[in-house]
Order: sequence, then structure tokens, then C-alpha cells
Amino acid sequence: MGGKTPHSALSDALTAEDVATYLRETPDFLQQHPDVVHHLIPPPENRGNGVADLQHFMLLKLRREVADLTAQQEELIATARANINNQSRVHAAALYLMDAQSFEHLIQTITTDLAVLLDLDLACLVMEQPEDSRLVLHAERSGLQLVETGAISQWIGKRDIILRGNIQGMAEIYGPAAPIVRSEALVRLQIAPDAPAGLLAFASRDADLFHPGQGTELLSFLARVVERCIRNWLTL
Amino acid sequence: MGGKTPHSALSDALTAEDVATYLRETPDFLQQHPDVVHHLIPPPENRGNGVADLQHFMLLKLRREVADLTAQQEELIATARANINNQSRVHAAALYLMDAQSFEHLIQTITTDLAVLLDLDLACLVMEQPEDSRLVLHAERSGLQLVETGAISQWIGKRDIILRGNIQGMAEIYGPAAPIVRSEALVRLQIAPDAPAGLLAFASRDADLFHPGQGTELLSFLARVVERCIRNWLTL
Repeated sequence: MGGKTPHSALSDALTAEDVATYLRETPDFLQQHPDVVHHLIPPPENRGNGVADLQHFMLLKLRREVADLTAQQEELIATARANINNQSRVHAAALYLMDAQSFEHLIQTITTDLAVLLDLDLACLVMEQPEDSRLVLHAERSGLQLVETGAISQWIGKRDIILRGNIQGMAEIYGPAAPIVRSEALVRLQIAPDAPAGLLAFASRDADLFHPGQGTELLSFLARVVERCIRNWLTL
Repeated sequence: MGGKTPHSALSDALTAEDVATYLRETPDFLQQHPDVVHHLIPPPENRGNGVADLQHFMLLKLRREVADLTAQQEELIATARANINNQSRVHAAALYLMDAQSFEHLIQTITTDLAVLLDLDLACLVMEQPEDSRLVLHAERSGLQLVETGAISQWIGKRDIILRGNIQGMAEIYGPAAPIVRSEALVRLQIAPDAPAGLLAFASRDADLFHPGQGTELLSFLARVVERCIRNWLTL
């Protein structure tokens, strides 16, 4: 037989010669199993006979096209499924944030529950050294990380969101958990025009879970929800 | 398998299904064993002779398959685009609701801005006759519709959401705008366990814009956001 190797255990037991013998003795095989025709590429024949050769060429082309379209379709469906999953995770997270019963509870929800709800390894809230004493107070008790003024712009420039794969997590963001971080999404938070800059960081052990070029709509939406929830509790 | 019976001892051990499986997994079989083609009778559509006819039959089948796959792909892409559009509209609406500066402003946002943000013709808020005097107060000034206790269950039964196409809008829900309504989505609101039943109604002049079988995740999410925003202002 040719370069192709059959995969199933069943087929392993058959030789090409067995099948050829069977088919020679069973001329109506394709009539009984018309779908099989569809899987087979007929041999090029009638060299010099234009019609058969052209058809053979077209067959190969069409079959490649079917394979390409099928692969694209599988990818489209997988992407659509992933989007629906991500969407419902982000929606569950948004509602959960809105359900927080106090500012402290909100911060705790962001830094502990959010990662679970989004099926990620870590979610962190970073604020540049704030004037607001309530934030300073909470930094000691919850997962809020405080950094020097300017640090966030240094990490993400002027962008509102940045996705990075294949990285080492920064201790300034993730604290002692930094070593497990292999990819991240960093989303800028602007709680109020005059509030210190903030950052929502989502991280995964998977070096490829976040990577440039991914859609950012859902995480951006979640950041906008976080901004509003914080504003609401601080009555900013 | 069919009427023909294989004769050799070897073939006796094979079933037609074994051979079919083998061939499906070995598309180049006929190229490796071109002589076998001459022994096989092509499926009924393909009476005639030899390789050219078999090829012709396969070409037609493959062309149909390419056409089907292409149509499916276009539909998948159109659906994905529509989902992304709807998602970003619902997200914009959710953030807008969260930005309301007072309870009155929230109700006004629901009954006037929501339809625009969602690119619909109408959005209405219906509450069963409430004990809560603040709701009664607002019913007179904003788009809030008050209905008798039990009316909402009468419309949507025990369901949380119902989509209906090709309908006449009910005046109890849409007031004087009812005549333009040709399809609607009715979503139950449960503001608090002991609060009167509520309903968020989305309507279109397009008789087919809402119809049973459509996805409801986005509108359900928006209803959950509305519940939380109302709760927040009433501190329920």
C-alpha cells in the first residue's frame, strides 16, 4: 500500500492486498457503500486522454478544498464555542462583582473569586501609591498591590490593555505567586479622572493562554465593570 | 453488505464494513491499486464505464460538498459577527445602566436609552402593582408600566425569558407604542425575593427580529444587571 497508514486497530489487521482481492471479488462494493467513493482518489488514467487527467487534477483540487473548508469550519466552531464560554464566565464574574456587599468584599472578590470565575490562575488588582487612605488600609489586608506612581505606564505604556504570552510574572503585580505566571492580560483601570492609575491583571500558568492578537472585548468590559463597582463603593 | 458474496477463503474473513473502514482511512488506495477500479461497478448515478465516469461522479459530489461547506461557513461567520455586535451593544448598555446617577435616572435609562443602545424600537419596564411607594411615584413620571399582580405570570408563565415573533404588542406593556410592536423579548425581573415581580420588555417593529429558538444569554445577562442596578438604588 501507499504512504498513508490506516489508523484503526481493525485496519491494522488488513493488508492492502486483502482489500484489493476482496474488491476484485465484490464488484458491487461501491454500490453497496456509495459513501466510500467519496473518500477515495481514483488513479490518474488514460494518459493522453485530456478528460480523465483534467478530472483527476480537479478532483485533487476539490478534495484539498473540502479538507481546507472542513478544517476552517472546525476552527470557526471551536472559536465560537470558546467565545460563548468566555462570555458566560465574564458575565458571571461581572454579576458577582456587582453583588459585593462592601468595598472590602469587592476587593476580595476581585483578588480571590475572579480568577476562579474566569478559570484563570490569578487575578490581581494593582493601584499606584494612592492618596486615598481607604485604599492604603485595604492594601494590607487584601490582595491589592500598591506600586509607585508611574509603574503602570512603565508596564503598559499608553495602552488600555496588553496581552503577553511566554513571560515571567512580575513580583510587583503578583507578589509571591509571580513565579507561576507564564502569560497575562494587563488592563488599565481609571476609577475616576483624578484617582491614581490602577491595573487589573489576569494571569495563567499556561504560557500561551494570553497572547497578542487575541480579542480583548470581554476583559475590557470586565475592567469597566470593576471601575464602576469601585466608584460605587467609594462614591467617586 | 450486498447480494454478492466474496468467494475466496481470505475474503470470507473480511466483512464489507472492515473494507469500507479501511478505504475511508486510505484515500490513496485506488492510486496504489489502479487495476481494482476496473473490477468495480460505480454507484448507480455513475453507470457507464471506467475511471472517467467514477471521477465524474466524485467531482459532482465534491462540488456539492464545497458549495455546502462554503454556505455553512458564510452562515457561521455572519452569526459570529452578529453575536459580537449584540455582545458589544449589551455591554455598552450594561455599563450605561451602571452609570445612572439616581434611581429616577436609572428608570429613565431603561425606558428611553436602552432601546437606542440595543438598536431596538422599544424597551419597557413593567412592575406588578407594588407596595413600594417609590415605584408608584415613578410610574407617573417615567416609562415604568404598572400592571396587576399576576399579569406577568399570565404572559410568560414560569419562564424567565420568552421570545415571540409575529405578534401584536400589548398595550399593558408598551402603552401607546403597542401598535408598532411586531416581535418581542420578555425577561422576568426578580429585584428581591419579596419584591413584586417585574418584567423587562424589548420590542421591534421587525416581526422576525425576536423569535423562539434564539439565544437568550445576552438579554438574560442584561436583565440580571438591571436587577442589581435597581437593588443598588433601593438598597434592597
